[in-house]
Amino acid sequence: MTSTISIQMDGNPAFARIPPWVKAKIRPIAVEKIQNVYDWVETECIPAERIYKKQLEGDRWKTPAIIHELRKKAKAQGLFNLFLPKHFVESPGLTNLEYSCCAEIMGRVYWAAQTMNCHAPETGNIELLAKYCTPEQKKRWLYPLMNGDMSSAYSMTEPDVASSDATQIGIRMEITDKEVIINGRKLYGNCQYNEEMQLFILMGCSDPKNPNAWNRHTTLVVPAKTAGLKQVRNLTIMGYDWAPEGHGEYMYENVRVPIENIILGPGRAFEIAQGRLGPGRIHHCMRLIGQAERAYELALVRCVEPRKKPRGKFIGDFDSNIERIADMRMTIDAMRQVVLNAADTMDLQGNKAGRYAIAQSKIMVPNALLKVIDEAMQIYGGQGLTQHTPLPELWTYARFVRVADGPDSAHRHQVGRDQMKTAKGFRERAEKYTERYKELCKKWNIEPEEFWGIV
Amino acid sequence: MTSTISIQMDGNPAFARIPPWVKAKIRPIAVEKIQNVYDWVETECIPAERIYKKQLEGDRWKTPAIIHELRKKAKAQGLFNLFLPKHFVESPGLTNLEYSCCAEIMGRVYWAAQTMNCHAPETGNIELLAKYCTPEQKKRWLYPLMNGDMSSAYSMTEPDVASSDATQIGIRMEITDKEVIINGRKLYGNCQYNEEMQLFILMGCSDPKNPNAWNRHTTLVVPAKTAGLKQVRNLTIMGYDWAPEGHGEYMYENVRVPIENIILGPGRAFEIAQGRLGPGRIHHCMRLIGQAERAYELALVRCVEPRKKPRGKFIGDFDSNIERIADMRMTIDAMRQVVLNAADTMDLQGNKAGRYAIAQSKIMVPNALLKVIDEAMQIYGGQGLTQHTPLPELWTYARFVRVADGPDSAHRHQVGRDQMKTAKGFRERAEKYTERYKELCKKWNIEPEEFWGIV
Amino acid sequence: MTSTISIQMDGNPAFARIPPWVKAKIRPIAVEKIQNVYDWVETECIPAERIYKKQLEGDRWKTPAIIHELRKKAKAQGLFNLFLPKHFVESPGLTNLEYSCCAEIMGRVYWAAQTMNCHAPETGNIELLAKYCTPEQKKRWLYPLMNGDMSSAYSMTEPDVASSDATQIGIRMEITDKEVIINGRKLYGNCQYNEEMQLFILMGCSDPKNPNAWNRHTTLVVPAKTAGLKQVRNLTIMGYDWAPEGHGEYMYENVRVPIENIILGPGRAFEIAQGRLGPGRIHHCMRLIGQAERAYELALVRCVEPRKKPRGKFIGDFDSNIERIADMRMTIDAMRQVVLNAADTMDLQGNKAGRYAIAQSKIMVPNALLKVIDEAMQIYGGQGLTQHTPLPELWTYARFVRVADGPDSAHRHQVGRDQMKTAKGFRERAEKYTERYKELCKKWNIEPEEFWGIV
Amino acid sequence: MTSTISIQMDGNPAFARIPPWVKAKIRPIAVEKIQNVYDWVETECIPAERIYKKQLEGDRWKTPAIIHELRKKAKAQGLFNLFLPKHFVESPGLTNLEYSCCAEIMGRVYWAAQTMNCHAPETGNIELLAKYCTPEQKKRWLYPLMNGDMSSAYSMTEPDVASSDATQIGIRMEITDKEVIINGRKLYGNCQYNEEMQLFILMGCSDPKNPNAWNRHTTLVVPAKTAGLKQVRNLTIMGYDWAPEGHGEYMYENVRVPIENIILGPGRAFEIAQGRLGPGRIHHCMRLIGQAERAYELALVRCVEPRKKPRGKFIGDFDSNIERIADMRMTIDAMRQVVLNAADTMDLQGNKAGRYAIAQSKIMVPNALLKVIDEAMQIYGGQGLTQHTPLPELWTYARFVRVADGPDSAHRHQVGRDQMKTAKGFRERAEKYTERYKELCKKWNIEPEEFWGIV
Repeated sequence: MTSTISIQMDGNPAFARIPPWVKAKIRPIAVEKIQNVYDWVETECIPAERIYKKQLEGDRWKTPAIIHELRKKAKAQGLFNLFLPKHFVESPGLTNLEYSCCAEIMGRVYWAAQTMNCHAPETGNIELLAKYCTPEQKKRWLYPLMNGDMSSAYSMTEPDVASSDATQIGIRMEITDKEVIINGRKLYGNCQYNEEMQLFILMGCSDPKNPNAWNRHTTLVVPAKTAGLKQVRNLTIMGYDWAPEGHGEYMYENVRVPIENIILGPGRAFEIAQGRLGPGRIHHCMRLIGQAERAYELALVRCVEPRKKPRGKFIGDFDSNIERIADMRMTIDAMRQVVLNAADTMDLQGNKAGRYAIAQSKIMVPNALLKVIDEAMQIYGGQGLTQHTPLPELWTYARFVRVADGPDSAHRHQVGRDQMKTAKGFRERAEKYTERYKELCKKWNIEPEEFWGIV
Repeated sequence: MTSTISIQMDGNPAFARIPPWVKAKIRPIAVEKIQNVYDWVETECIPAERIYKKQLEGDRWKTPAIIHELRKKAKAQGLFNLFLPKHFVESPGLTNLEYSCCAEIMGRVYWAAQTMNCHAPETGNIELLAKYCTPEQKKRWLYPLMNGDMSSAYSMTEPDVASSDATQIGIRMEITDKEVIINGRKLYGNCQYNEEMQLFILMGCSDPKNPNAWNRHTTLVVPAKTAGLKQVRNLTIMGYDWAPEGHGEYMYENVRVPIENIILGPGRAFEIAQGRLGPGRIHHCMRLIGQAERAYELALVRCVEPRKKPRGKFIGDFDSNIERIADMRMTIDAMRQVVLNAADTMDLQGNKAGRYAIAQSKIMVPNALLKVIDEAMQIYGGQGLTQHTPLPELWTYARFVRVADGPDSAHRHQVGRDQMKTAKGFRERAEKYTERYKELCKKWNIEPEEFWGIV
Repeated sequence: MTSTISIQMDGNPAFARIPPWVKAKIRPIAVEKIQNVYDWVETECIPAERIYKKQLEGDRWKTPAIIHELRKKAKAQGLFNLFLPKHFVESPGLTNLEYSCCAEIMGRVYWAAQTMNCHAPETGNIELLAKYCTPEQKKRWLYPLMNGDMSSAYSMTEPDVASSDATQIGIRMEITDKEVIINGRKLYGNCQYNEEMQLFILMGCSDPKNPNAWNRHTTLVVPAKTAGLKQVRNLTIMGYDWAPEGHGEYMYENVRVPIENIILGPGRAFEIAQGRLGPGRIHHCMRLIGQAERAYELALVRCVEPRKKPRGKFIGDFDSNIERIADMRMTIDAMRQVVLNAADTMDLQGNKAGRYAIAQSKIMVPNALLKVIDEAMQIYGGQGLTQHTPLPELWTYARFVRVADGPDSAHRHQVGRDQMKTAKGFRERAEKYTERYKELCKKWNIEPEEFWGIV
Repeated sequence: MTSTISIQMDGNPAFARIPPWVKAKIRPIAVEKIQNVYDWVETECIPAERIYKKQLEGDRWKTPAIIHELRKKAKAQGLFNLFLPKHFVESPGLTNLEYSCCAEIMGRVYWAAQTMNCHAPETGNIELLAKYCTPEQKKRWLYPLMNGDMSSAYSMTEPDVASSDATQIGIRMEITDKEVIINGRKLYGNCQYNEEMQLFILMGCSDPKNPNAWNRHTTLVVPAKTAGLKQVRNLTIMGYDWAPEGHGEYMYENVRVPIENIILGPGRAFEIAQGRLGPGRIHHCMRLIGQAERAYELALVRCVEPRKKPRGKFIGDFDSNIERIADMRMTIDAMRQVVLNAADTMDLQGNKAGRYAIAQSKIMVPNALLKVIDEAMQIYGGQGLTQHTPLPELWTYARFVRVADGPDSAHRHQVGRDQMKTAKGFRERAEKYTERYKELCKKWNIEPEEFWGIV
């Protein structure tokens, strides 16, 4: 294997977008991983985009052969599970900040993360299982997932409640001595049409009368194809079926699982959910940055397309487009700063301290990047909306992130409510300013004026 | 037939969104049509949305049976071809303004216009054929289209040039004594996978060396399935195949059509294109208003959904949503004013005088309404992006309109260049203000001041 | 006087921006007024802008001599009080729609309306007095105001309550047999530093314990310089003192006025306030359109300025600016449609029916036009922010309108709450669609599908 | 003096907004400075805002006594000239990143920087003089400026050319043996109405026929009150006179200065201008962040104002305002990341490498923060626009930055043109993807498809 010492970051496209302060923090081991991920995506993924699509044409619910091959190869090259933060024993050892740089590159092709076993919901699920499972449970679920031998789904949203308020989750879990009996309905969670999808991590309500609303829920594992569990349909997102993973819609009718499948213990679902709100929350955002870079590059490629010269000028010769390209560039770079800061905050101060920065990424990034990708489509003209480019899929994925994990207004509300709590402190400071103003008036022999608008 | 006298506009939902100035202009015959179109869409189209989808599932390129039935029925009820402006002999007699009110209602379901033979590209094609064809040609193409016996495509965009600058269109048409031989490539134009699509109205380059760039092109009719004409693929738009009409991508290899298929004459394609830039240009916009109203209503329905009460409140109880609903309402209504004014301008002053107002609609309306539909999806939460609602299709259609007929920046450019021509006049006026200022200075005994920034 | 018959609207700059549907409605008498207002502003106001400023330099609280002269002249030419709607006996006879066209032109110079006695708050005050005063009161206050012999203020906002919720207004009015004794504080209301400002129309709380919150308040006239009434300071708006009218901040200490000064009767302030919410509400908006046109023209003038050619091109040669000019043009025109529709709705259906359209104007117009004026400043470059152009004042006035009469979020809330009341109706319709869907399923022999997201 | 060791950053309001990655980089000496600057602004500046205004009332062109006192005191406390980067011998030793944290705090009161001799244009001028002057020149100009004994102006913009293209600068400098004779006009550059303003750093054209456009200009020092130099007027910015510094407008008529006043040498103005484009460019942005924080805090204070409860709720209880506060918070924080990254890039890689990041700050920050301050005014209601709060001045200053140093579109253009140069590289990469795609097709036994839209 090549020594890391030889990797030069300056002038190296793999590192071109990484800000200086981040470059200064990434360790040699990460430099090597970033380079490898970059080479992988450039060589194995982007050129294979149409191969992947072609292989899906015959059977949309079967993972394409190319994915199987690439996963095998990536694993052999040590590119598997890079996301798992370095404090886990199972981790390959990257910090959140270092992994962010990898994740951005993965975002350039929407299934590239999957070739490296770094895709949602696997990332969140693996982290959850690594954190809360017993050794026995890890053997059954965590290691196969980390080995890439099967895939999993996370099942929380429900059609019958406002799921962004998770205390309302209502799927019924009756816990007996030996088993849990489940009844109700779920939306989302990957599709079990795909054979590889073998387990659901399910959150449900096991103790609805518990006076403490945060102790009513339980999280457990439901093997796919358990009797009584029926997939009603696949959900399309903006018209895309997102095959071969998809988004299922499920009916549970007297579904029975052994109590050994309960994670952490009955009534502890919120403890688990809390733990899931760490790095997984920004993986989407990191990859979105990469998607936006891809869209940006496609726009640039079109800007110098010799066949497309309206009124005799290249598209890139119009200074309206010059300004658009500048705005796209600056927006992506600003958003990268926001996400990298969130990753770094988790590294330095822990997931809890990073809560605000994570929410900030979650809200700002998809919104800003949707505009970038939309602009890229518009620069492309009509073809930008067709399968001639990956732009529509990039856009759709970014749009999806605005509702995944709760609509952004729910997150914005949370941020706003936290901030409102600081108002009283500023009010007190304002009162002190006024007192001090009166002192200064005396000193300068000025009559203090009353202004009616402020304290 | 029911007498029009009995139709009351006040408090009647069919007329609820029509501004007073427009109400005052629509004649009894139009009042009746609007009412009929409204009843038709409410009773026959909206409830049938899922029937239509179901019937498409088996064979995506066959027009669903329900469409055939509804077209027959609509024709029998006098709801066919309403769009054709009243100065045509074939017209049912509505003004552009009156038809606009119908078109908005049709927009509520994206295939409703088709049940009334008022859908694109049929509308533009029928108008073109009605305007420029010989009686013989009308018999072959116009009347079957108006009767709903077949459907047609309009084929202009090309992959090899900047089609928004139509003088670049390059598909080669060699005109001999008897026939025209066509070679080249085209993008868009409905799909000939569908049996009913029987003719292309094709614009190509027949005289590339003509010194006058506006006389180089010819428009003619190519029957579907002519030898040498091959559909390469169907184009998806943001992932949707838009079956069963679709958007084709075509290869012409020595395609031969008789010279009788030439419309108006060789080299006269721009005359025809010019004529096509009338009412057809705003039909999209009119229907978009209806789509946005539909999205708006779905958002309102969600606002009072009893199952969805985050933190115990209806979605519609949050005053952030109250403000959002207000903004959506006001945006739609403002955009309606813009389109209705364009329609009315064409009625009062002709299509040419309406050019600016048409461009204004074309640019502003899809942009503004995309935000409205996007907001509706967001209020809906995750389900708003799935097939559980028609919102994703409404959004996608509006997005498509931003590139159909050329990206909006091309139209914006045209408007801007026209406006720049007026600058000189304002400059002259500014100079007169200064002269007059100097006179006034004398009168008021003031030293004139020189300001360096203005003339 | 010239006969109106000779005025040609086509190609006439006075009518260039009026949409066809409005042109078709304005009567000859209005055509003549519009022409006269146009000529007046072009000849007497725009060239005199710097004269006005110069004359203010010496004494900022004295109305400049040029204003006195122009008012005298305008009155002699029949250009006074044009705003008063035609149903008033004192009206010059224009409809709201016709006056709108005049008001737009007046907006081109911020004090032009004043030369025609059509400025705020005079317009609202005159309408109020014309509507609610006794003949005796009219003689004292209405006719002098209409004659231009004095000026007035409207005093409602208070520093100690949330004035956008008018029921909170708290200035104390103690009504005795003969007089009313007033105590409290007010913000805004023109400056009594100016000698011509001779009366305040004041809203206060005379019956705080009345169980009906809408019957607690009284409106009355307070002559300027009544004992106990003290102007604390002039309020600047974004740094401008808006001299010589200004915005006062007032303290009332045992101010006494005779009960004859009460308008309509004690406890009837809300009846009056309601009546004031008619045309006066959109006069600001009409004038803002004119301001934006002025800013637009200044931007165009700069676009062809021969001294300003960055990188050798006119500012107007950059196609980013070409697109900006197009956007500015289209925004202004869309906003004009919104306001003209509001004016027309009042004409056709009365002020109450126009409530929504008025609010729509109030919210949308200043927001949209602020962007237009801001863009004009930016095209102008640094000088666009200085006194070298009227742009900063145009912007500031538009910004002010966003808070005058309550911040726009208050109005948006009102619109949104009204709309939310319609949600139930749409929900019922949605349920009917589902019933009908089930019927259609039977007919087409399809199993009805349950979708979980919609009713 | 207290030892820096005792300063705790956690929970300390002086450090509350500094991101973790920056905290980790600031050295103890900077920690102490930041704390001192914070205490200084909180105790000496914010409470004195009205004192400052009051003292200006009498004579607007005399620096208020409180400023003199505070400058003396700040200098004694080692708070002078903090901005000068650490590689200068005259520097107090802070990195750009460390100083950024100080500058943000200074921004909370617009004249606070001046009390610490860290205000524009002094900062840029001092840096320029420190970089390019001879020891003799330093003695005459640099040290007095650094000592705070006088103040200076930078004079570049002209009314007669497009100054954003600096090669057009045309003020005539005739260089003789002993002196330079200057003729022409300038806009901006502080006001010489103020006695303390004692020198202009002037850029002019000394060699108009030089074939190299970058060698035609010379920079020199003109003492205020040199014969022939006349200030025509003070320029207001959005209505503010920005006294007592102001923005002058100047006429040069045969102004003579000795050739010893030339900096660096004749024809070397662009070398100097280039050097000036470093840290000074982002000082505005750093302070703007502080201004926006101030506006944000004022909005929060209003959110819990007990007198302002529309419909019975605190302003901060409305969830539309909760969401607004969240958006304001997140926008400020994102912009801070952008500026801090620019500062850090200069520290790590030099000013030249930071060019893009500086431009990014220059363009994005004022635009984004204008919206934040505008929202704060709107939350404040009508009073937010008056002198009752500092909000209008905060807004105006941010607006000014959008045109200072050239309108943002000029900078955006520069960024966009630089980016367009990268298009070719991406195009080549795209071609390689296609080659590799064809290889993969062979491997997977797939017919390569031609897509017409992409290379």
